[in-house]
Order: sequence, then structure tokens, then C-alpha cells
Amino acid sequence: MNLSRYFPFLNWARTYNASAFGNDVTASLIVTVMLIPQSLAYAMLAGLPPVIGLYASIGPLLAYALFGSSRTLSVGPVAVVSLMTAATVSQIATPGSPEYASAAMLLALLSGVFLFISGFLRLGFLANLLSHPVISGFITASGILIAISQLKHLLGIEAHGHSLPELLGSIAQHIGQFHGVTLALGLSVIGFLLYTRSALQPLLMRWGLPGSMINAITKVGPAIAVILSTLVVALMGLDAKGVNVVGEIPKGLPGLTLPVFDAELWKKLLPAALLISVIGFVESVSVGQTLAAKRRQRIDPDQELIGLGSANLASAFSGGFPVTGGFSRSVVNYDAGAQTPLAGAFTAVGIAVATLFLTPLFKYLPIATLAATIIVAVLTLVDLGAIRRTWDYSKSDFIAMLLTILVTLGVGVETGVITGVLASLLLHLWRTSRPHIAVIGRVPGTEHFRNIHRHTVETNEATLSIRIDESLYFANARFLEDSVYELVANDKRVEHVVLVCSAINEIDGSALESLEAINEHLAESNVTLHLSEVKGPVMDRLKRSHFLELLSGRVFFSQHEAMLYLDREAT
Amino acid sequence: MNLSRYFPFLNWARTYNASAFGNDVTASLIVTVMLIPQSLAYAMLAGLPPVIGLYASIGPLLAYALFGSSRTLSVGPVAVVSLMTAATVSQIATPGSPEYASAAMLLALLSGVFLFISGFLRLGFLANLLSHPVISGFITASGILIAISQLKHLLGIEAHGHSLPELLGSIAQHIGQFHGVTLALGLSVIGFLLYTRSALQPLLMRWGLPGSMINAITKVGPAIAVILSTLVVALMGLDAKGVNVVGEIPKGLPGLTLPVFDAELWKKLLPAALLISVIGFVESVSVGQTLAAKRRQRIDPDQELIGLGSANLASAFSGGFPVTGGFSRSVVNYDAGAQTPLAGAFTAVGIAVATLFLTPLFKYLPIATLAATIIVAVLTLVDLGAIRRTWDYSKSDFIAMLLTILVTLGVGVETGVITGVLASLLLHLWRTSRPHIAVIGRVPGTEHFRNIHRHTVETNEATLSIRIDESLYFANARFLEDSVYELVANDKRVEHVVLVCSAINEIDGSALESLEAINEHLAESNVTLHLSEVKGPVMDRLKRSHFLELLSGRVFFSQHEAMLYLDREAT
Repeated sequence: MNLSRYFPFLNWARTYNASAFGNDVTASLIVTVMLIPQSLAYAMLAGLPPVIGLYASIGPLLAYALFGSSRTLSVGPVAVVSLMTAATVSQIATPGSPEYASAAMLLALLSGVFLFISGFLRLGFLANLLSHPVISGFITASGILIAISQLKHLLGIEAHGHSLPELLGSIAQHIGQFHGVTLALGLSVIGFLLYTRSALQPLLMRWGLPGSMINAITKVGPAIAVILSTLVVALMGLDAKGVNVVGEIPKGLPGLTLPVFDAELWKKLLPAALLISVIGFVESVSVGQTLAAKRRQRIDPDQELIGLGSANLASAFSGGFPVTGGFSRSVVNYDAGAQTPLAGAFTAVGIAVATLFLTPLFKYLPIATLAATIIVAVLTLVDLGAIRRTWDYSKSDFIAMLLTILVTLGVGVETGVITGVLASLLLHLWRTSRPHIAVIGRVPGTEHFRNIHRHTVETNEATLSIRIDESLYFANARFLEDSVYELVANDKRVEHVVLVCSAINEIDGSALESLEAINEHLAESNVTLHLSEVKGPVMDRLKRSHFLELLSGRVFFSQHEAMLYLDREAT
Repeated sequence: MNLSRYFPFLNWARTYNASAFGNDVTASLIVTVMLIPQSLAYAMLAGLPPVIGLYASIGPLLAYALFGSSRTLSVGPVAVVSLMTAATVSQIATPGSPEYASAAMLLALLSGVFLFISGFLRLGFLANLLSHPVISGFITASGILIAISQLKHLLGIEAHGHSLPELLGSIAQHIGQFHGVTLALGLSVIGFLLYTRSALQPLLMRWGLPGSMINAITKVGPAIAVILSTLVVALMGLDAKGVNVVGEIPKGLPGLTLPVFDAELWKKLLPAALLISVIGFVESVSVGQTLAAKRRQRIDPDQELIGLGSANLASAFSGGFPVTGGFSRSVVNYDAGAQTPLAGAFTAVGIAVATLFLTPLFKYLPIATLAATIIVAVLTLVDLGAIRRTWDYSKSDFIAMLLTILVTLGVGVETGVITGVLASLLLHLWRTSRPHIAVIGRVPGTEHFRNIHRHTVETNEATLSIRIDESLYFANARFLEDSVYELVANDKRVEHVVLVCSAINEIDGSALESLEAINEHLAESNVTLHLSEVKGPVMDRLKRSHFLELLSGRVFFSQHEAMLYLDREAT
């Protein structure tokens, strides 16, 4: 039994040394500083008290360090999954209520169970149902939704909604009550963060700092913004002047929390948990794969399901909410030199220390600062250029992407993802349901056969040679029947039909029945059916059916051989 | 504008003559005799008064004669669609109530609208979502369900349910109350029908009758059974002894009925109407195609949608219920020599005459006789051999078929179809999500390249040539990335990767992004990516993206050329 498949840490634990330890500790310090404001902000985005974000950044990281297969992935709260959590849970409970927090925990539990089971059943391939254009469209639309949803905190007003029309309508209704000081503070933070992102980097480069250090420094911008704005609020007493702050939060580590057992609630959360698992997994595995490839390492998608599943279970049992691997944090972790998942475990220790000792300092942390960090972070998710590139490359991908964006913005995240998946599946079936079919003839003086409409070729009027440029399966089986009957009905001289199978990698049961039907119906109108250039594996399969016994004609090794035989027949 | 596309009768009306008229009238007489008991029985199966079956066999036939593209299809009530109607409508209203009948009409209206719209949008290809094994499994399971559901009429007891466990449980509960005379009558009819099917045919053949006449005679068995058993009941007064009979039915033709406008009801019926449309269309188009092919005629699937749509609309507005093309009737119509859809119109006249003048005679028609005709008819739908053949040919088709059968029997028809469709889609994605990928090398002394694991070939240790035997799309894009990274990670000497694209008919947007990712990650670990043998249309597409500019290596016309170049590089 291969233990290291299920416990990937066995792969690196034996060779772990002081150098790797040093690298892991350094990386974990930088990620901790970055993760504190992120975890507070994303908990708020999920509609939860900010401290829950810290809870969700301890247990899950430890669990992932044990079971995850990526060495550098940084697990914890992320923007899109937090948005999906808010969209689901707020339909069931009021944000701020204990029921809300326990429903979020339950959502993590159910996601964890889904991921875990999928990992054991090796269902990682199901994530392939999400095509890149659909994911890209979904992430872009989610980014826009998240940014708009945070405007209320920036303006210091109330607003609700899970789609663009709802959100904009609600903001328009309350915009008159905006709070000037809050807005000024929020805009300052946004300005500061954009500055650290754009202007600081060239400056540090001119100072000659190494690239990885510059990257790390610009990524701690949010932490500096948190410290500075907290100081401003505390020193100037802005909280008394109406600036919303995080306020008193309970000290200490999360205890063991047990999920509620309420069949009705479980049933309501199930579909959302499934979607969150899939989206979280796809996001995470893309990041993990990108980073692993850079060091010529491998991640195992099925093991990633188990790693992320255990992280979500850990989150559920320690008062958290759904988590997954985050893009920006993982890149920082990688750049800072993390060697093993122990870097994640050290980060968990860092967050635990922060939860124990720093929480009193968050009392004066303004909500607007957290909103500003979210807005700046998610704007990088919005990739409008991808829409143009997709339009240029493939209209069918473009349709799937546009539908995903419009439905996500207009209706909501869940409906958006489902629409995208169904659209890309249907479009794929539509494309392969009408394969390219060519009537072919011999290029004079050769053994080559080409499309009669494109080349000057020799044919024999009693023989129709048809090449199908696609594997045959249920989605195109009927089209094949249609096409063959039409070609034969159009030419009353035809006595032989040869299906040229050089491009057919598979014939499924539906296509086999269609071939049988074609054979039978052609025979009834005195036309003989032949096959040529059948690939080995396809032939092996056909031999297991009765088709070859029923076939009115012969199976030729090559189309050349078929034509030699049929030309002789014709004379 | 091509009028004959939308009005297919224009194709044959000009050349219609006395000989075709004679054939059509003869065929219509035989089909009328066959259709009367069928329409009564299937209305009963749908939970409706038998006379509704006659109504649904007049207007729809006239509408289809105008708009349908098959010359021999016989439209009207059929077993599977009637079962689906019962399964849907009985969840909304009590069988026998006026609400039940109007919900069934509404179901016909909605199905008609769906079919009509799909025809105009040319969505006929969507029927391809149903693979043959799923249809075959569904029809077999429906046949079993229908037969079991009729046992109560044979036993003269009450029983309800829409799945096998429900039906069997309900029958077991009431079986003690069975009515002996009813059972004797029903079993006699079954015996008689089986005799006409099996023993009569050889007998008539020995008498030297022509095959088509024999076929027609054996098909009027149900009509003879109806007449005989009605006489028996009337003469012996069996209705007074507890044998259930059809009873008094209203005389005369159906008037124009208007569907009820109840948004709630419409919403409830919509999903079922969609399923009934799809199943009805698939059944009907298969029969139509089979018969058209025999005479080298063509049917147009998109026009069939319009034909069946108008038939269902006609049914809805004349007090009927969902209809479609029936298998056995269409075959009889064809064998009896029907030349044009006018045969269907003449059948409609025949049924109208029956409705006007024969309905008083149905007063003593025993329900058990109708149940017996249904049981004998649907047993031909059950094809257990297909299960075995599918198992032999393809395990993945077998799984889809078995799931369809088990869920249809165990849960019900609607869940059964949906499960089957989803299962076959997922299995298809699963199969194509892991395409065959081979590392190839040159067969010594040739320009041919083969799998290094199957042939003795020459390779160059700095170059990895990978051939992918499938088009690249979203379902296998990630697998491609995985495979390439794994192959490269396993061999640290690799400096060049060549993707051999000879079997790739398409690269969609997801696969393009995967190729870009592969190119970028390989470049980061100093491996150059090349392509070879890219097909023309695929190359045209790639030129519309930025991929060729980003590509770290070159695109070679042939793999031979690629190896010549890379061998030179290596030295």
C-alpha cells in the first residue's frame, strides 16, 4: 500500500533539513502578515464577524499541511468562495445571528465531505466540466459583484443584494446617507494600496532590492493600511464620529465546535456546498499546478480533493467557514521560498498567536479599510481582456463566457456557474454533433483520397466513399445516419457505400446501432455498406458485437484496397 | 423562400394521383381499425376517459398531414408518452376529475409549443442528448412499468403508484379483492392476442396469403378482441356481475377547447412537458427515419419538430392529450402501402366517423380488454437482450443504460430519463477527458514515428515527442497539462517537448489556455515547446490568438522535420 499517496508529507519529511526550515519560517512570517487582514476582510465579505476569518486560518492550514499535495499552496478564506458563502447563507439566516455562523460552519462541513469523498472516488476529473472561459467569466463577474458589494462599507451606508441590479438599486436608495469621514478614510486606503501596487514597485527596484523581496513588501500593503488606519481612528476618536469599526472581539483560540444536525438545513445547503466545493477546487488546483510546474514538481488532483476536504472539515470543527487555496497568498508563499507545507503550518501558528494576543488591537480597525483591501484585491480578478481574446479565438467559447458573466451579474453566483457549465456542455455537444463529413475520390495516379469538392479526383459512379472526421458517439450518431441517407437518396446510381474510418478513435453503443441501422436500410434499397481504414482498437470492439456478421459488405484495410475491389466489381 | 420546407405537402400534392389515393385509403382503413382500440387504451393508461383517446386521434393527424415531413408516420396516443402524462398529471389532479383532463390538455399545449419553437430554432440536434442505450433502457423500463400498472384492471382491483415498488406494494395490498370473471376475461384476451401474434401468422402463411396482408390481419387482433369481448359482456350481462366497462360516453366530435390560464399550473407542468416533447420526438423521429430510409426518402428532423408540435397543439385545442408518432401503427401504415400523409388524414376521418357513430357500442367494452391489449403491446417494447449486447460492447454505455432502467423502475419515468441523460453525458466526458497520449520515436530508417513502448524506435534524449489522440477541449485540457508536466518531471534531461498534433481536429479556448500554460511553465524550467503536424483549420485558429507569438519553440510541418531540426540542435 502506498501510504505516501494519502499522506503526502511522507514524501518530504525524511529529507527535511535546517535550510528548508529556515525558508519555510521566513515564508510563513510574510504570509501571516498578509493573511491577517485578508482573513478579517473575507470573513466580513462572507457576512461573518471578522474574527471568524482568523479561526478559518488556523485549523484548515494544519489539516492541509498533512493531506495536501501542493508544497506551496496557501489555504484559507478567499474572495470568491466567501462571496458564494454569503449568497447562500444569507438566504437562510440573518447576517450577524448565531444561526448565520452555524450555517456557514455547516457549509464548510458539507463542502469538506464532498471534497473528501470525491478524492477517495478519484472524481477530480469532474472539475473539467468547468471550461476555462466559464471559469474566467465567472471570476470576472464575481470580482465585479464583490467590489460593488463593498461600496456600502466605503460609503458607510446599508445596502443588500446578491446580483448587480439588486446591489445597485439598494445603493442608489441609500446613497444620500453616505458618511463623509468613512468615505475619506476608505478612499485614502484604496489610494495607498494602489500606490504600493504600482508606484512602490519601480521605486524599490530603483533602490536595487531583489524582486522577491519587492513582491513581498508590496503584498504587506494591506497590513500597513490596517495598522495606519487603526491608529488614525484610535487617536482621532473617529469611531465616536460614526466610522464603523470591528469593535470588541472575543479573545482566544476557537474551541471545538460541533455542527448542528437539522435535516432541513442540510438539504438547503447541499447544492451550494457542491458548487462551492467545485469552484474552490478548480481555483485552488489551478494555482497549485502553476506553482508546482515552476519547480518541476507534481500535484495530484485527487489528493488535492482530500487535502482541501480535510481543510474544510477542520474549518467546520473550529468555528470557521468554507476555505480553499488562494492565488495571491500562494504566489507570495512561493516567492518567499516556502519549501514544504510546513510553511502553512507555521503560518497557522502565526495566526493563532495573532488571535491570542492581537485581537484587542482590532477594536479600532475601521470596516472601510477592510472593504478597501477587498476592492483592490478583487479588481485584479476582473479580466475584461479575456472576453476580447475569447471572442477572437472561438465564438462558441465566447457565448459560454458571456452567458456566465451576464447571469452571474444579473441573477447571482450559483445560477451563473450552473448556466456556464450547461452552456459549455451543450455547445460542445453541438459542435461535435455535426462532424465534418467528406465524399472522397482518388487523386489520379496515387493511393491518396481527397474531398471531391476540393480536388480533381477519380470516382466510380456506383460507389460513394464517405470520410467522417470525428469519433462516432451518441451526439453525432443520428447526424451520421441523416448524412448517409441524404447522400444516398441524392444519387440513385449508388450501389456501394464505403465509410472511411481513418479519423474515428471510438464508436460507442449509439453509433454502433446507427451503423447497424444504416447497414440494414441500405441493404433494403440494395446498397452494400463497406468500411475501410478501421483503427485497431475500434475493430477489436466491433468484433465483440454482431455488426461484422450483419455487415452487407466488407471491411477493407485501406481505402485504396476498397477502390481496387469495387472498381473490379463495377466492370 | 422555400415554402416546401415549412409545408412539406407541397412536395407531393402536385403529383398526387388515383393510384396513390387508392393506396392511402386502403392503409388508412387498416390503421383506423388498429387505432380505435389503441387510442381508447392509451387514454386509459394516461388516466383519462377512453373517449379522449379518440379525440386525440383526429385533430393531431390532420395537423401532422399538413406539417409533418414523414410520409408514413402514424401520429396519435402512444404508450410511453401516455405513461409520462399519467405520471405528471396525477401529481396535480385526481384521475377522472375535469381538472385532470384540462391539465392533460395543457400538457399537450406546452409540449406542442416546445416542439414548435424547437423546430423554428432548428434545435433538433438536442435530441442527440439521448444516447441509444439510454433510450433503449428507458423504453424497456417504461414497458415493464406500463404492463405492471395494467395488472389492476386485469385483476379488477384498485392500485396506484408510479414506480415499481409503489405499484407492486399497492397491488399486494389489494390482491385479495381480485374479481374472478374480470381476470378470466382479461387472460382470455391476452391469450387470444398472443395467439394472433405467434400462431396465426404461420397459419396464414401456409394458406399462401401475401406477407403485408398477414401483417395487417395480425395487427387487427386487438380490434377483434374488443368486438368479441364487448359482445360477451353485453350478451351475458357481465357488467352487472362486477366487470368494469367503459360505460356511457358522450357522442359527437370534440369542440374547440381552450386551455386554462393558471400560471402556477403552467409552471408545474413545464419540466414534464419538456421531457415528454423530447421523448416523443426521439421515438417518433426514429420510426420516421427507419421507414423513410426503406424507400430512399428523407425526413427533416427540424420539420418533424414542427409537425409534431402542430399535432400536439391540435390535440390541446380539441380536448386531447400529448401525442406522437407510434411505432407499430406506422409500420402497419407503411406495409399497407400508405404513399403520403393523406393516409393519416383519411385515418382521422375514420376515427371521426367512429366517434360519431360507434361510441354507443363501447358501453359494454370491458376495461380488462383494453388493459390486456396494452400489456401485449408494451411487452414488445421490453428488450432485455439489448442489456446483454450493451454489456458486451461497451461498459460505459452499459452503466448509463442500467442506471436509466433502475431509476425509471425504482423512482419514476421523469427521474429515470434525466438520470440517463446526465449519466451518458458524464461518461462521455469522462472517456474523452483522458485521451490516449503516446511518447513517440522514429522507426529506424523511415519517416514514421511510433509509440516508444510498443516499437523499437530511435529517440534523442533531450527531446520528448508526445502524440495526443483526441481533439483538445475543456474536458481534457487539464489532463493534457497534467500529462505533459508529469512526463517532463520524470525526465530531467528533457530540453525540448514536441506536441504531435496529427489527431487533433479542434483546440477550444480552454485547451488553448492550457497550451499557453504548458508553454510558459516549460519555459520557466528551460524546456522549449514545439508543435508538429498541425492541421490546417486548427492552425488558422491558432493564428487568430497570440499563442504562436508566445510559443518558445517552432511549429514544424511534419514530425520528421521536427526531429531533423532537433537532432541537429542536440549535436
